[in-house]
Amino acid sequence: MKGEAIVILLVEDDEAHAEIVRRNFETSRIANRLMHVADGQAALDYLYRRNEFSDPANSPRPGVILLDLRLPKVDGLEVLRIIKADPNLSVIPAVVLTTSQAETDMIKAYSNHANSYLVKPVDSVKFTELMETFGYYWLAWNQKPN
Amino acid sequence: MKGEAIVILLVEDDEAHAEIVRRNFETSRIANRLMHVADGQAALDYLYRRNEFSDPANSPRPGVILLDLRLPKVDGLEVLRIIKADPNLSVIPAVVLTTSQAETDMIKAYSNHANSYLVKPVDSVKFTELMETFGYYWLAWNQKPN
Repeated sequence: MKGEAIVILLVEDDEAHAEIVRRNFETSRIANRLMHVADGQAALDYLYRRNEFSDPANSPRPGVILLDLRLPKVDGLEVLRIIKADPNLSVIPAVVLTTSQAETDMIKAYSNHANSYLVKPVDSVKFTELMETFGYYWLAWNQKPN
Repeated sequence: MKGEAIVILLVEDDEAHAEIVRRNFETSRIANRLMHVADGQAALDYLYRRNEFSDPANSPRPGVILLDLRLPKVDGLEVLRIIKADPNLSVIPAVVLTTSQAETDMIKAYSNHANSYLVKPVDSVKFTELMETFGYYWLAWNQKPN
């Protein structure tokens, strides 16, 4: 992975939120590639390279996962539980990005070994700021095995 | 915790590194309190409020743990293993801060559910920048249950 752009896997069913994330990464200074899937089953298919995600050239291993909690088909907590029980996938940082500020959701997310928990700001300027900080922290500073 | 300054527990046996971290937090805009212990056993005593750390007023629960890996008495990986197996403590983000860039250390840290892995920059300007980004991300943006 060294020298290559880090891939971010965005798991987000709300197209408007996905668009905000996409636009913020496009304008940020950090070169990277955003792969977007819209439900938990597609996230698992992507990570396990199943079905339409079987070609590693088109579905590169992500360097970080940005994961909504409320997702169709397989919910975000179940996605977390599965990937964090898999030694091959558990080393990929999984950051929750949700509208929920409920403590119960935070506890469940951390108990399922989410690496971090971020609440989507309502204010769009703050959302941009959060995505810039996210990108800077996880892509430029955080280290992970290849 | 809301409205209160978040406490950072720094577990670091190298006094020079601890001093760099302390100075950077003092000059950063984020108000917080840094509690420093110098070995893994003291970190566990602090978190479990044993011995000299039994008074919650003097040993407040941290909002984030900044953890060196090579530590006297109980090493950083063992500290991680113990706190991440405890439902009460596992919700506190534990960020590794080490000189080691070895992949094996990263894999061991993430396998023991480190929330993030940071390598201490040799360059002091970069070290300051890292500590500012760390503080901004984990104290201002990351959410955790109280």
